[in-house]
Amino acid sequence: MAYGDIDQLAINTIRVLAIDATSKANSGHPGAPMGLAPVSHVLFNKHMTFNPANPKWVNRDRFVLSNGHGCMLQYALLHLFGYKVTLDDLKSFRQLGSITPGHPEAHDTPGVEVTTGPLGQGFANAVGLAIAEKHTAAVFNKPGYELIDNYTFVIFGDGCAMEGVASEAASQAGHLQLGNLIAIYDDNKISIDGDTACAFTEDVLKRFEAYGWHTLEVKDGDHDLGAIEQAIAIAKGVKDKPTVIKLTTTIGYGSKLAGTGGVHGSPLKADDAAQVKEKFGFDPTKSFDVPQQVYDLYAKTAARGATAEESWNQLFTKYKGEYPELHADLARRLAGQLPEGWQKHLPEYKPTDPAIASRTLSQTVLNKLIDVIPELIGGSADLTGSNLTRAKNAVDFQPPSTGLGDWTGRYLRYGVREHGMGAIMNGLAAYGTIIPYSGTFLNFVSYAAGAVRLSALSHHQVIWVATHDSIGLGEDGPTHQPVETLAHFRALPNCMVWRPADGNETSAAYYIALVSRHTPSIIALSRQNLPQLEGSTIEKAIKGGYVCVEAENASVTLISTGSEVGIAVDAAKNLKEKHNVVARVVSLPCWEVFDSQPKEYKLSVLPDGIPSLSIEVMTTLGWEKYSHEQFGLNRFGASGPYKEVYNRFEFNAEGITKRALATIDFWKDVKPIRSPINRAFQQLI
Amino acid sequence: MAYGDIDQLAINTIRVLAIDATSKANSGHPGAPMGLAPVSHVLFNKHMTFNPANPKWVNRDRFVLSNGHGCMLQYALLHLFGYKVTLDDLKSFRQLGSITPGHPEAHDTPGVEVTTGPLGQGFANAVGLAIAEKHTAAVFNKPGYELIDNYTFVIFGDGCAMEGVASEAASQAGHLQLGNLIAIYDDNKISIDGDTACAFTEDVLKRFEAYGWHTLEVKDGDHDLGAIEQAIAIAKGVKDKPTVIKLTTTIGYGSKLAGTGGVHGSPLKADDAAQVKEKFGFDPTKSFDVPQQVYDLYAKTAARGATAEESWNQLFTKYKGEYPELHADLARRLAGQLPEGWQKHLPEYKPTDPAIASRTLSQTVLNKLIDVIPELIGGSADLTGSNLTRAKNAVDFQPPSTGLGDWTGRYLRYGVREHGMGAIMNGLAAYGTIIPYSGTFLNFVSYAAGAVRLSALSHHQVIWVATHDSIGLGEDGPTHQPVETLAHFRALPNCMVWRPADGNETSAAYYIALVSRHTPSIIALSRQNLPQLEGSTIEKAIKGGYVCVEAENASVTLISTGSEVGIAVDAAKNLKEKHNVVARVVSLPCWEVFDSQPKEYKLSVLPDGIPSLSIEVMTTLGWEKYSHEQFGLNRFGASGPYKEVYNRFEFNAEGITKRALATIDFWKDVKPIRSPINRAFQQLI
Repeated sequence: MAYGDIDQLAINTIRVLAIDATSKANSGHPGAPMGLAPVSHVLFNKHMTFNPANPKWVNRDRFVLSNGHGCMLQYALLHLFGYKVTLDDLKSFRQLGSITPGHPEAHDTPGVEVTTGPLGQGFANAVGLAIAEKHTAAVFNKPGYELIDNYTFVIFGDGCAMEGVASEAASQAGHLQLGNLIAIYDDNKISIDGDTACAFTEDVLKRFEAYGWHTLEVKDGDHDLGAIEQAIAIAKGVKDKPTVIKLTTTIGYGSKLAGTGGVHGSPLKADDAAQVKEKFGFDPTKSFDVPQQVYDLYAKTAARGATAEESWNQLFTKYKGEYPELHADLARRLAGQLPEGWQKHLPEYKPTDPAIASRTLSQTVLNKLIDVIPELIGGSADLTGSNLTRAKNAVDFQPPSTGLGDWTGRYLRYGVREHGMGAIMNGLAAYGTIIPYSGTFLNFVSYAAGAVRLSALSHHQVIWVATHDSIGLGEDGPTHQPVETLAHFRALPNCMVWRPADGNETSAAYYIALVSRHTPSIIALSRQNLPQLEGSTIEKAIKGGYVCVEAENASVTLISTGSEVGIAVDAAKNLKEKHNVVARVVSLPCWEVFDSQPKEYKLSVLPDGIPSLSIEVMTTLGWEKYSHEQFGLNRFGASGPYKEVYNRFEFNAEGITKRALATIDFWKDVKPIRSPINRAFQQLI
Repeated sequence: MAYGDIDQLAINTIRVLAIDATSKANSGHPGAPMGLAPVSHVLFNKHMTFNPANPKWVNRDRFVLSNGHGCMLQYALLHLFGYKVTLDDLKSFRQLGSITPGHPEAHDTPGVEVTTGPLGQGFANAVGLAIAEKHTAAVFNKPGYELIDNYTFVIFGDGCAMEGVASEAASQAGHLQLGNLIAIYDDNKISIDGDTACAFTEDVLKRFEAYGWHTLEVKDGDHDLGAIEQAIAIAKGVKDKPTVIKLTTTIGYGSKLAGTGGVHGSPLKADDAAQVKEKFGFDPTKSFDVPQQVYDLYAKTAARGATAEESWNQLFTKYKGEYPELHADLARRLAGQLPEGWQKHLPEYKPTDPAIASRTLSQTVLNKLIDVIPELIGGSADLTGSNLTRAKNAVDFQPPSTGLGDWTGRYLRYGVREHGMGAIMNGLAAYGTIIPYSGTFLNFVSYAAGAVRLSALSHHQVIWVATHDSIGLGEDGPTHQPVETLAHFRALPNCMVWRPADGNETSAAYYIALVSRHTPSIIALSRQNLPQLEGSTIEKAIKGGYVCVEAENASVTLISTGSEVGIAVDAAKNLKEKHNVVARVVSLPCWEVFDSQPKEYKLSVLPDGIPSLSIEVMTTLGWEKYSHEQFGLNRFGASGPYKEVYNRFEFNAEGITKRALATIDFWKDVKPIRSPINRAFQQLI
């Protein structure tokens, strides 16, 4: 606990790097790194175990900078400790193609655990990382083999503290008694609008106490390194509660504008930068100047981490002898492999099988897969009985003291906290040993839009079991009936939106969701029963789109998803019987996956020469990409028994028939009728 | 405070009506109404002032049932007090076309203040209603004229308490010291997953204390009517803090399943319903049987409300004599009229005016309009300096004791609470005297998706000043660069998404946003400078789309929005100069408004006979509705200086030229080329 000049030099080096990088970029946030350099120095060197040579070592301590705009702090630390973040990378801060973007992105930068910047997300990710540790430890640790015992540390600022997503996650963490989670609240009293007194006067520590957290305070976060070290040590000792440490710091410490909003989001002026450097004993004419002693000091910490990983590897090898199956399971998970043969457990259906709601079909899939894929960790935002996400005989993930479950439990009670759930799932996925899935109503995935976006951007494998996917939910009415939701998430890059029409398509949705290790999935599922289709198989459906009813010399292609495919099949029969019109039927359960098929295949599904009509009981927005004409619901739904609601909006065989005939008539003059698959040019990737 | 048999009879009547309506619908939530009947009886009869004959009387006390699934409570109360909700309406509960949908919808049912059901929203709406009251009172009350002094009461359950949106709003309400807000927390310890012990073990009252609320507790909410009355009386007396009353109730009181999840979301079984009725002294063979004494009792309360409004009307008439201008202002606002001639203050621009960022153009509009439209109340989610939403010399809406503003203030510091802000704006709009607008980055409007959806569904006039609208924000990178956001909100019914290209279009966006009294608007604005277009005028732009550059014998129409229109104009010049190709340019700042124009006009903008290319630097999803080919960004953006990012993705004159040529070439074989405005059939409304 003795700190000396070298520590101060290291702290000031971080500050000066943040000044230099933001100045060179002429953009960015120097204030938070300058204020948080002391706590980071202490945390990383005295309390954290990590190996910069292997940023993916499973038992590393996790660090999350939830106030991601302060990322020059993180980039400077990664550089100083010897991660693959060079001085040139720091010089490319916020430049095109660099690994040091304006906010930290997990898949881009070695050592960045999760993508942060959108406020509150990182905090909630940290809760997920801590849950993942607790669970992984409970499953794999054995007497003498403490394989998993890492901590998760998160720094968050006033902005994160104000965001609801962080509140939700904090309440959940308190309930779960996550003693492995240590949060440092950067109480610098400044946000973008200025003094937090203008909008944020609550007692943050008292709030966290109310959530069930242990609370500590360090009053002089600028200088009192010993107090910081001790507070973190105390926090580590509190095993039955997460801890929050309120750390009072000065934003932009050292700057002439220290303690003001002026230093939050703009580089320091040249004279200010110069005076800071002089004050800190740096040459004001030099930039990106790192004293060798600082590298040397940080190399010692890195070396301790490397040694720790080495010992861990030896322990893991020994573990193999004693617990070969557990060893194989953990090794497999860490390699990103699914258990061999898991896919054989996906249920298959025949057309003669009974009509079943796709939420129930999803339940059947989950019940089968949960037994064979131990890394599947489920949950629901307090809609378990509606989402059907809990396996028979599941154990809840709960503190054993509650008597409601234990740490090996694989079912999380998220409470009515959709946004927190989404962000926690991102943390679970980021840990490396878990594939999270969770349920809510499709309409309320929108509450978690901020987290879903980061799943996609960060390449997290997260599965949303999104039931009650349309006006087909009936009586709950328009407040609960999604109309715009699929369009929203279909527009999100790297996000799979599935809307299976029957049992085989539901199996296909889970198949692709599980083999896609770097993409989130939203599986939209019906409340109402759906027939098993004649033309569906898992093999066809995993292409994202396929011909469900083929017909020669067809006059129209009907394209649909989910609960409307069966109605489209009925309409095709109706067209033939009543109008002697031949129609093909295409099921398109996942646009993103269909888009990735070869053009030849896509044209075989949506061929040239005949017009097409899409049918989906929600917004038509986006459907023009696949169909010539669109039947949808460009308005809010209505409260009533579901069949009545469907009929009110003409989503029945007659309503489709009428529009199919209009489509054929409307397109009869156009030559050639080209499939919408044909485009004048490719989109950029 | 003396309660007798008649009170119990009234309470039980509410319970029995909830049982009957959910039984008849075979759907719905009897549990909450049965548990909350006592507090509602006391609240409405002893503490609230309202006139069922005029549900829009401005000084009525506001009531919000945030746990909207319990709406049979509200419908029963509205019926018993004599609002235009008949017994037949109760019998049509959750039926198609009824005014008693599955969750309460403000624009459908007289006496329902805000649409609730999506959890947490109603609580936050109530905060908005209370802010609106404080502000309206501060502006209009004068000595001897306490025109505005109503309370806002909100009941919320565990689900609402768990939602982040409610946490954000609660923190804000505490900061704002809203003594006119009284929240009743229905602590029934049951949510859908069962006992709240499984997910929600925080100390709710302590949390609210931390936010700065006054807290009270009523331990026996099932029977202790006197304690309920007294707690509310105490709450009314606390003028410098909002109050939360923790009321312990038994969900489904009276049912065999009372106190369990079994009575939360399903009708009672027939034998259970019968035994409840017998226990309560009702005839178990009868349904919807309301004792006349209950009507009589409730009519007395209604009569007191009618008298109160009468006195108020007299006071208001007297006020007219003494404060004619204020009287006229309030009367005008209540009539839903804007001040005469306000639109003359909208700035107009010439092509020779300098290039200006549309966020700055928005600031100019706001600066001008704030002086002439006093009901405009602004704010920002802690991005004031970036959103440019605060007028020069604005006064903040703050408790005077803070020294930071006062109650007449028209600028709200929302903190980093986007979802809370959206829901609070809904409450502000619902009050009836305010038009709220607020800023955040476009990307973070997604955090508030749940609230925006309810703005649209509830017909609230709410304006989002959504700056930093694309990759044009540059260095902050993909975590902050919206790609999917416009598609999301364009897919939302009754929501205007504007993306103005220059000064005149920005004025047009505000013009339509302000005259549309029942529709929310999202105005997407650039961080970067944009040139003033040759062809733009306010008159053209208010049509949502118009021809910006017309040309005879054009080979292609370029369609664009916002920051890309100027680039499209450059591309048109480039096409002419380098390729001798004639291009028209169309600006389409608001799809929703363009869609509402006559077909003839739309075809004049997007005519038959030539192919079209849309250009927008975000997802192409949905653009097929207007264009034959689409140039967009179907991936996440990148961190870097904005011009480099634009060039990286080829959003420049050359990139558009290349694709325009490809479009012309690709469509040369097709006859006829029909404008996408032509459709085989109309969408249902």
